[in-house]
Amino acid sequence: MDETYEVRPVGRVLSPLDLRTAPRQGDEGAPDAWVVFEPDVAEALRDLAPGEEAILLTWLDRASRDVLVVHPRGDVRNPPTGVFSTRSPDRPNPIGLHTVEILAIDGLRVRVRNLEAVDGTPVLDVKPVLGPIPER
Amino acid sequence: MDETYEVRPVGRVLSPLDLRTAPRQGDEGAPDAWVVFEPDVAEALRDLAPGEEAILLTWLDRASRDVLVVHPRGDVRNPPTGVFSTRSPDRPNPIGLHTVEILAIDGLRVRVRNLEAVDGTPVLDVKPVLGPIPER
Repeated sequence: MDETYEVRPVGRVLSPLDLRTAPRQGDEGAPDAWVVFEPDVAEALRDLAPGEEAILLTWLDRASRDVLVVHPRGDVRNPPTGVFSTRSPDRPNPIGLHTVEILAIDGLRVRVRNLEAVDGTPVLDVKPVLGPIPER
Repeated sequence: MDETYEVRPVGRVLSPLDLRTAPRQGDEGAPDAWVVFEPDVAEALRDLAPGEEAILLTWLDRASRDVLVVHPRGDVRNPPTGVFSTRSPDRPNPIGLHTVEILAIDGLRVRVRNLEAVDGTPVLDVKPVLGPIPER
């Protein structure tokens, strides 16, 4: 398939985490972090509110895109597994998926809990967690 | 932010749905569909199995990327809302997030339930649904 598409970061993660200290998932001991959005998407985030859960999509820019099989969680005792059955950052399109809680909002800066992305990670999108059908 | 990244589709949706017939979400009446993967990612999907739930990431290639505020669910009775608080396909990076059930696998073709993406939609990634921490 020849066609490709261009993603443009709408913000960036500001976090004390680096590749050495980041946990595997956000609910495995990640610290609070800031997401700093670009001024041109201010309108898109105007209805986010503290206390809400949100899904953050990131671009894992330090991942390897040519990896198709990994030992899950980087542990060689786990059998080699196709990356579509793992949450490995190494995969053809290294898009990270993070469920976070919004703690505070300060203009273009959004404080979140449970974000395991490392400092500087580009943010691509924010989506609400879907509730039951009658509440949509 | 000037930096951009290139996503490369790893497959495509084969579905009877078009823009006129697609429901808003997969659990609101979407038919079963096929995802047809590219031969070069065969190894990445080798551990997918019928009966599993998976998260499919798509590129909503018919969306508008310059829309920041929408009436949720396309209903003007809903107040204008920033797209980061909605599941609107129109958003700066139109990445679709779909929780599906894998029904069958036939080589590079994976049959799924609950996919509201329209026919031809590019697929970017597949991820497992995360269980509780002790089972990871």
